[in-house]
Amino acid sequence: MADVKLSEVAAALGGTLADERDPVITGVAGLEHAGPGDLTFVAKRALLPRLAECAAAAAIVGPDMECELPAIRVAEPYAAFAAVLERFAPDPRRIFPPGVHPTAVIAPDADIAAAAAIGPYCVIAAGVVVGAGSVLGPHVILEADVLIGADCVLHARSTVRERCRFGDRVTVHPGTVIGSHGFGYLPGPDGLTTIPQIGIVRIEEDVEIGANTTIDRATTGVTLIGRGSKLDNLVQIAHNVVIGENSVVAAQAGISGSTELGKNVVLAGQAGLVGHIKLGDGVMVGAQGGVTKSIPAGTSVSGYPAREHSFARKICAATARLPDLLKEFRNLQNRVDALEKGNGSGSSAEDD
Amino acid sequence: MADVKLSEVAAALGGTLADERDPVITGVAGLEHAGPGDLTFVAKRALLPRLAECAAAAAIVGPDMECELPAIRVAEPYAAFAAVLERFAPDPRRIFPPGVHPTAVIAPDADIAAAAAIGPYCVIAAGVVVGAGSVLGPHVILEADVLIGADCVLHARSTVRERCRFGDRVTVHPGTVIGSHGFGYLPGPDGLTTIPQIGIVRIEEDVEIGANTTIDRATTGVTLIGRGSKLDNLVQIAHNVVIGENSVVAAQAGISGSTELGKNVVLAGQAGLVGHIKLGDGVMVGAQGGVTKSIPAGTSVSGYPAREHSFARKICAATARLPDLLKEFRNLQNRVDALEKGNGSGSSAEDD
Amino acid sequence: MADVKLSEVAAALGGTLADERDPVITGVAGLEHAGPGDLTFVAKRALLPRLAECAAAAAIVGPDMECELPAIRVAEPYAAFAAVLERFAPDPRRIFPPGVHPTAVIAPDADIAAAAAIGPYCVIAAGVVVGAGSVLGPHVILEADVLIGADCVLHARSTVRERCRFGDRVTVHPGTVIGSHGFGYLPGPDGLTTIPQIGIVRIEEDVEIGANTTIDRATTGVTLIGRGSKLDNLVQIAHNVVIGENSVVAAQAGISGSTELGKNVVLAGQAGLVGHIKLGDGVMVGAQGGVTKSIPAGTSVSGYPAREHSFARKICAATARLPDLLKEFRNLQNRVDALEKGNGSGSSAEDD
Repeated sequence: MADVKLSEVAAALGGTLADERDPVITGVAGLEHAGPGDLTFVAKRALLPRLAECAAAAAIVGPDMECELPAIRVAEPYAAFAAVLERFAPDPRRIFPPGVHPTAVIAPDADIAAAAAIGPYCVIAAGVVVGAGSVLGPHVILEADVLIGADCVLHARSTVRERCRFGDRVTVHPGTVIGSHGFGYLPGPDGLTTIPQIGIVRIEEDVEIGANTTIDRATTGVTLIGRGSKLDNLVQIAHNVVIGENSVVAAQAGISGSTELGKNVVLAGQAGLVGHIKLGDGVMVGAQGGVTKSIPAGTSVSGYPAREHSFARKICAATARLPDLLKEFRNLQNRVDALEKGNGSGSSAEDD
Repeated sequence: MADVKLSEVAAALGGTLADERDPVITGVAGLEHAGPGDLTFVAKRALLPRLAECAAAAAIVGPDMECELPAIRVAEPYAAFAAVLERFAPDPRRIFPPGVHPTAVIAPDADIAAAAAIGPYCVIAAGVVVGAGSVLGPHVILEADVLIGADCVLHARSTVRERCRFGDRVTVHPGTVIGSHGFGYLPGPDGLTTIPQIGIVRIEEDVEIGANTTIDRATTGVTLIGRGSKLDNLVQIAHNVVIGENSVVAAQAGISGSTELGKNVVLAGQAGLVGHIKLGDGVMVGAQGGVTKSIPAGTSVSGYPAREHSFARKICAATARLPDLLKEFRNLQNRVDALEKGNGSGSSAEDD
Repeated sequence: MADVKLSEVAAALGGTLADERDPVITGVAGLEHAGPGDLTFVAKRALLPRLAECAAAAAIVGPDMECELPAIRVAEPYAAFAAVLERFAPDPRRIFPPGVHPTAVIAPDADIAAAAAIGPYCVIAAGVVVGAGSVLGPHVILEADVLIGADCVLHARSTVRERCRFGDRVTVHPGTVIGSHGFGYLPGPDGLTTIPQIGIVRIEEDVEIGANTTIDRATTGVTLIGRGSKLDNLVQIAHNVVIGENSVVAAQAGISGSTELGKNVVLAGQAGLVGHIKLGDGVMVGAQGGVTKSIPAGTSVSGYPAREHSFARKICAATARLPDLLKEFRNLQNRVDALEKGNGSGSSAEDD
């Protein structure tokens, strides 16, 4: 992005300049990283003193914050900062040159929208459809009969197996595998027989999927990632899982087969869910939480096995007291022993 | 697959029609997903009522189950359903077109069986052997001197590093890395020195390996995945691990260096094993279980640190009572305090 | 490597032959795997008897160890063995043929050092710099403006997104993704808005990164992997994480956003760290440990939530006694009940 004056950024954000100072902005960065020319932001008053040690040229601040630096005042500094990041992001045409790279292998009957960009060494099989404005980085593989909506971004090496379907504005990061074979076997006398997985994966619009994540196709029917949901890196989604709208799955979390998540569910990092359970709307699972049964809507859980979060915290606090409790318990047993002997002598005294 | 009459499916499965109805079947799907024309199945009597809400054309049911729909009776409905899935699976020739794609880079001295299929942009290095009937999806990489048996399927982007060896009928899903460098370092005054890993990985026949899984080569000798074993997605197998026959490793589980698993071992999702231990035949490790020592054959374990499963369940149940126990303990202490004072006053009363 | 006499290996290691025997060595292997012609090693006296069952031609042993086989004596047998592994490792020119493969797609303005090796189907975008002696395996992708130092090794399919920077002698294993988009979203009334991630990843010299690992670029600024640190397979490093020098992150561990590790930190397998915390120099986190707050330098922690290791062990031991404790507690309650009644009857006796 070309350099801009602070007042131009303020106008774009719907904010106001704090005073008459109006420097030129050459970049954008968080408080810890901002250098000369950068625009930074302060979302909490408590962080204002850190501006003194920051080389930034200007800051985005909240309505009532005093600021030594030239500043833009807005209602929500963090959201405004996120918006301005977009303006300073690198030119996507440098990352994804327009057009179809001559090395892409595209089946004759594939239907690639004229406005799509296809990177080097992509492989697009028979029956694939790629919508207008979608861009494929290098080495993307779309197997037979895959449907990709409009304005999707598939980064390097993402792989979509046959017949899976994407809505519009889906973003997939490098190395992700969508539509791999579900993990289903029938035990028998000669070992394990593979159960064919003939369903698909459907990714609804505005979903984002992280790097090296894996989403298995359904045995029959559909593994579904609902509209607006976001999956981080190295996430595992098993066959026939259903994720509702606007849910968030952090890195290295895993969901076992046929489990269903409602809307606005949040799984923190490394959480794990057993198969065939349901998590209601708005459920939150803490980091490394291990969910072994269905969870009603609106509930936060954590720990293994996952329990309601405030109860899980009480258990955690209590376990920390357990080593002492054991000692105190022995002590109390001894005191009761003594009392019993004392009573006994008391009784015997009464017997006397 | 072409449409078939129910009676033809029944004959193929060795089952019998429940009555004279013999509709045409156009697809196959589980109870939740079945639509008009689909053949579904009911393995448990308790699920029979759900057929009323299902649009399926027919069902596979057990010997004694009454069924409103046209039906095939068999001894094992789920196994029969799995068998019929195979018949309705998509044509593999559409996924893996036969022949060697002209973009594949194949070393002159590589030995590719005439009947193998090699996808676009595969890279096959010097000394590689690929057996008859094996198929490589797009972008598969076989480094120098890799040996692949007959009738293997290596999906898109799977990568096998130098000198590793596959038996027959091995299936590898997309993005998997086999034969990567084991994680071994020698600490020294100048930091960590990498220990060269000059061993290999050997995958025995009928093994299946999930997407984006990683299996490290041995320091010396062999990292071994035994005949018929199945590994899910995002699994980590470290150097010199040995997995016996027909074992199952679910998604995101990890096995540290030199640990050995017997036959028919099952690791549930996100389980983790420390290095240099042995799990006997038939050991089962629960989801997220953390195994810190060797486990004798036939034992089920769970939790962290993993303990015998029924004991681990007792501990879990007991920890849930721990917050209350702490309160009750304080209460009991107070009662003992009172008793001691009462005794004391009793004593002093006696002294009177 | 050509066959060598044991005396030549001894000279290279600065060791001495145990006696006049000086066989020809044709390979190198650990005790369990050594066959005829192999050189093996024994680091601990307790393992010496296992040489009797080992077909090795010779062994590397410690200064005072008696050994039936021809032997080299050195101060540190394991370190000497690691050194000799290097000499028997396969010829890297067979894995990475020198020169630029004709199928590599290289932008006209990319700057590839003359001595670099670039594998088949690599994609090197505009503005990339690759230093002297660096080798890229097949299918490596370097997006726009990536800088790679000298003598780096990027194995098959490793992907580096735009503007990320590597120091010298960095090794990256297959399938790794560096510089993917950080996982940041702003919740709003219409769902989650993606926060652009315009920072980079910087990998300092002598770092090694395992297969299918993911390292996210910073929101602004830098995600940093410090000099000499080693990351295993399937590790997740979130945006703005900082890892100090010579730290070790084992397989499937994950570090959440903006968390900072000092020098010589060790995370065992499947450990997880929440965001925005600091781990001081030399901190060790046990396998599956879940770190929820900052940890001072030199501390070992384990468990969930992670606590100082010896305390965590006490808690673990105590939880194993918890089921019995609950029974004993009920018993003690009953005894106190009886005492109270006894006191009561005692009192009433006194009243009599």
